[in-house]
Amino acid sequence: MARIVMKFGGTSVADLDRIRHVAALVKRHIERGDETAVVVSAMAGETNKLVSWARELSPLHDAREYDVVVAAGEQITAGLLAIALSAIGVDARSWLGWQIPLRTSGMHGSARIVGIDATLLDERLSKGQAAVIAGFQGVAPDDRISTLGRGGSDTSAVAIASALRADRCDIYTDVDGIYTTDPRIVPRARLLPRVAYEEMLEMASLGAKVLQTRSVEIAMLYQVPVRVLSTFDAESEGTLLCDEEDIMEKKPVTGIAYSRDEAKITLHRIPDQPGVAAAIFGPLADAGVNVDMIVQNVSEDGRRTDLTFTVSRSELSRSLDAIEKAAAAIGYRDVTSAADVAKVSIIGIGMRAHPGVAQTMFLTLAEKGINIQVISTSEIKVSVLIPEEYVELAVRALHSAYELDAE
Amino acid sequence: MARIVMKFGGTSVADLDRIRHVAALVKRHIERGDETAVVVSAMAGETNKLVSWARELSPLHDAREYDVVVAAGEQITAGLLAIALSAIGVDARSWLGWQIPLRTSGMHGSARIVGIDATLLDERLSKGQAAVIAGFQGVAPDDRISTLGRGGSDTSAVAIASALRADRCDIYTDVDGIYTTDPRIVPRARLLPRVAYEEMLEMASLGAKVLQTRSVEIAMLYQVPVRVLSTFDAESEGTLLCDEEDIMEKKPVTGIAYSRDEAKITLHRIPDQPGVAAAIFGPLADAGVNVDMIVQNVSEDGRRTDLTFTVSRSELSRSLDAIEKAAAAIGYRDVTSAADVAKVSIIGIGMRAHPGVAQTMFLTLAEKGINIQVISTSEIKVSVLIPEEYVELAVRALHSAYELDAE
Repeated sequence: MARIVMKFGGTSVADLDRIRHVAALVKRHIERGDETAVVVSAMAGETNKLVSWARELSPLHDAREYDVVVAAGEQITAGLLAIALSAIGVDARSWLGWQIPLRTSGMHGSARIVGIDATLLDERLSKGQAAVIAGFQGVAPDDRISTLGRGGSDTSAVAIASALRADRCDIYTDVDGIYTTDPRIVPRARLLPRVAYEEMLEMASLGAKVLQTRSVEIAMLYQVPVRVLSTFDAESEGTLLCDEEDIMEKKPVTGIAYSRDEAKITLHRIPDQPGVAAAIFGPLADAGVNVDMIVQNVSEDGRRTDLTFTVSRSELSRSLDAIEKAAAAIGYRDVTSAADVAKVSIIGIGMRAHPGVAQTMFLTLAEKGINIQVISTSEIKVSVLIPEEYVELAVRALHSAYELDAE
Repeated sequence: MARIVMKFGGTSVADLDRIRHVAALVKRHIERGDETAVVVSAMAGETNKLVSWARELSPLHDAREYDVVVAAGEQITAGLLAIALSAIGVDARSWLGWQIPLRTSGMHGSARIVGIDATLLDERLSKGQAAVIAGFQGVAPDDRISTLGRGGSDTSAVAIASALRADRCDIYTDVDGIYTTDPRIVPRARLLPRVAYEEMLEMASLGAKVLQTRSVEIAMLYQVPVRVLSTFDAESEGTLLCDEEDIMEKKPVTGIAYSRDEAKITLHRIPDQPGVAAAIFGPLADAGVNVDMIVQNVSEDGRRTDLTFTVSRSELSRSLDAIEKAAAAIGYRDVTSAADVAKVSIIGIGMRAHPGVAQTMFLTLAEKGINIQVISTSEIKVSVLIPEEYVELAVRALHSAYELDAE
């Protein structure tokens, strides 16, 4: 017997047949004597429909009303799954954010969880009743419905698992776990039985879309064992997120991530003097742009130099506007930009113990004739910016070089 | 300046364009300085979709979960209308049943309103903010979402108007008011500027589908002036429901209603003795059948007689089953039934003051060769059961006979 939180995303509850399938998966846990809470997303497509309605009525809609509209999606799934469970003899009830209550900040549309009162859930779970919880939603300090932002159901599930002191949080999805890299690019990619929280955090924020970054942060902070597994493949054991110490064999590199959502901006001939970085990145921050990689060339004459940084593609034009407006304060000669770039990253907690890991990356890319435009590193990852057309080649070459290929 | 509750049904909010149209109607009241609350139904089709999902998963679903699922429909409309109002500069916020709170009984799926705390609504209305209220829903004693049963948004609107001490409750619908009879059958039917609550109650329960019966009961009980008018015809003044005293000219008959949802059952040669009615109608009540008209012939020999009663068509086979099971206790010779019958009723508070009103009905029908099978009367109505094929003819003839035709 264990206490388990199961989470099912939109594709897993896309229609009534899939909801019945999910009910059968939940029933297995109940029959095993597990205390089981289930967190559900809206049926696939439902959230997009509701969001588009709100946007069409008013692009600048009140976020509180947006929350009222979109939270209905998860409410519907929660009620339907509770009905499907009762139909196969499982005692179940649905829980909405305000009923738990799951309290959030007042930032409607992208609220943060501030506290979960687990008393009522706890009471029902210990009586053997399955709790079916509407994900993605909570109640704000103004007693109105709040939502956690896109992908928020993962965050709901992990936070609820923490509040319930669950033995595990199982995130059911349409892939069967975390792979060494994207199997669509590298057919020999391998399923990882275990991944450290920190690695997952780097992978999530580097473009692997399996888990929402915030849910991984919460799992790491509150030490929630999270398992990622497939709704549709009952045989797969999936991937367990765990502490670094719980991973026995540490290869230097665990996985390879990539992101095409990159754009590069270079400011030519800026003054090589204190304060210039602030003059550039201050206006960008004010414009709400997230700057990722930054590299500044060594000045040749000690007076003028070039500076390159990356932003996401959707923020490129906004970034260029902000730079142009600050032209006088920065004092550059001219600006160039490119959107045909991509970021490739190697990630692994083993890096800490293995020197020379980055060197293998640089050599491998050089052998394939791939030019590195920008480099950024952290303790457990190395990212490089390369021309987008080389992404597949680079990922495959690195996957082999770090001995990640399946036999 | 007045305090107004406006109610819009599913066809009035069927898509984003209609929601924008409703927002414009609300804005007119706000600009006039009216304190305005708006009660909305789910977008047309939405409730049916949600109900069919719940039924498909389990015909015998938990009514509490059914409520969670279907209440989402009104929630979505309320949020969208609040957004549409803000978009045209009207300060508005949505209210869900549990937020008001509108408290109901614990009969999930067909709950009754037990109390409305108008404090919060009152505060916002007096500040000039439009309140957009999700109709059809409330919160049950178990702090879970409850719904009032089909058509419950009318009831929500009238009850909220009463709690807010509103000057009027305007029910917007796809017809432009209450007519002397169905204009599809009688093209010369006239719009009634005023109808007494009691008359409307008879009309509503006799098959005129404009307003839900319970909403009229509440309006009568709490003296809420209700106006029925068209969402799509801005010129129409609609029909005002009011007290009998507020109607100056009282014709003997105000309107003619009909219902095709009728079936007739006759028990032949039942014992003419005390207790036989109980032996018949007890088992029917136990089977949940609503018996409407009842007529018992005078016994010829003082020992055996025939008894005829009507039920709705959908309950005919259930009724026959119940009668058959109770055959021994009743002691009839045989049973006959017919579903090709219809009920036609004349309604009018003026009947009280005008003798001979029923006689005109009987003569009119006789002149057209229409045989009356069963008669039932109350203080302000006379209903007759006739062969269904004569419905249109009967309604038209009566409409002329009582001088209801438009010039």
